[in-house]
Amino acid sequence: MAIGMYSASVPVYQRQLGALSRVLDKGSAWAAAKKVDEGVLGATRLIPDMFPLTRQVQLACRFAEESTSRLAGLEAPKAPENAEKTLGELRTRVAAVLDHLKTFKPDQINGSEGREIVLNIAGSPLKLSGEQYLEHFAMANFYFHCTTAYAILRQCGVEIGKRDFIGGL
Amino acid sequence: MAIGMYSASVPVYQRQLGALSRVLDKGSAWAAAKKVDEGVLGATRLIPDMFPLTRQVQLACRFAEESTSRLAGLEAPKAPENAEKTLGELRTRVAAVLDHLKTFKPDQINGSEGREIVLNIAGSPLKLSGEQYLEHFAMANFYFHCTTAYAILRQCGVEIGKRDFIGGL
Repeated sequence: MAIGMYSASVPVYQRQLGALSRVLDKGSAWAAAKKVDEGVLGATRLIPDMFPLTRQVQLACRFAEESTSRLAGLEAPKAPENAEKTLGELRTRVAAVLDHLKTFKPDQINGSEGREIVLNIAGSPLKLSGEQYLEHFAMANFYFHCTTAYAILRQCGVEIGKRDFIGGL
Repeated sequence: MAIGMYSASVPVYQRQLGALSRVLDKGSAWAAAKKVDEGVLGATRLIPDMFPLTRQVQLACRFAEESTSRLAGLEAPKAPENAEKTLGELRTRVAAVLDHLKTFKPDQINGSEGREIVLNIAGSPLKLSGEQYLEHFAMANFYFHCTTAYAILRQCGVEIGKRDFIGGL
């Protein structure tokens, strides 16, 4: 009895990115009600030397897309860096990642727990197993950026709660 | 080939709580340098209707402790609710959870992916498998509170970065 690398990755990213997209929807509704430019909301940060909302969402997308591709032994799709400015554009980016995640068959990712994944950490290579990479690097980073995106909108005053963050169980 | 529920839970909580403890250390050093009372820092929030730093850390601890216990079919230790006020007290709480996590043998948690876990969501029961519970509920909540604790300290001006958040890989 055990769990597969597919179910430990793809459905987690799908639920969480689906929730993120609905959180961004609520952000757009808030911006419209307050007559706030979505580009201004997208550029909002918790503190000046942290990334803005746009980049938090883009990084969540990148960790989901890159980790599943690497575990499957494929090249990750190359999304343009930092292209989105509005929350609508961010939702389009999230939707593209969700479409990409649908293309994976369980067999492509199952069995990748022992696959060697080499990270480049500040110029030095770090070798991880597929399992370590998914659980200790990709998921930790993915949740970090999803939560920070949520926190930025929450701090702006968008009415979202933990259930919006988690999404549909 | 597959992964076990133990390695998908206990070592993840251990790495992330170890990192959280070191982030709290840096918070204490910052408070001492700025002559800020640790109780004030512990009571700091991103926004008034979110939980303060103390509660974020306590909830991260609770999700780690409760999920591993439930997967093992055991009662979770009953920590006093909301007892810690300073960052030193929070580190003691984290250390107690780390000690508790060490007591689990892999065999106690491996095989729990199919165990029925019933959550109480706003008064209604929600049945999940052990795997769904760990990956979609416990981990999502755990990372939410770890990231929010980090974000509060980061917004206060504590010099921490993503590598502090992730901890030792």
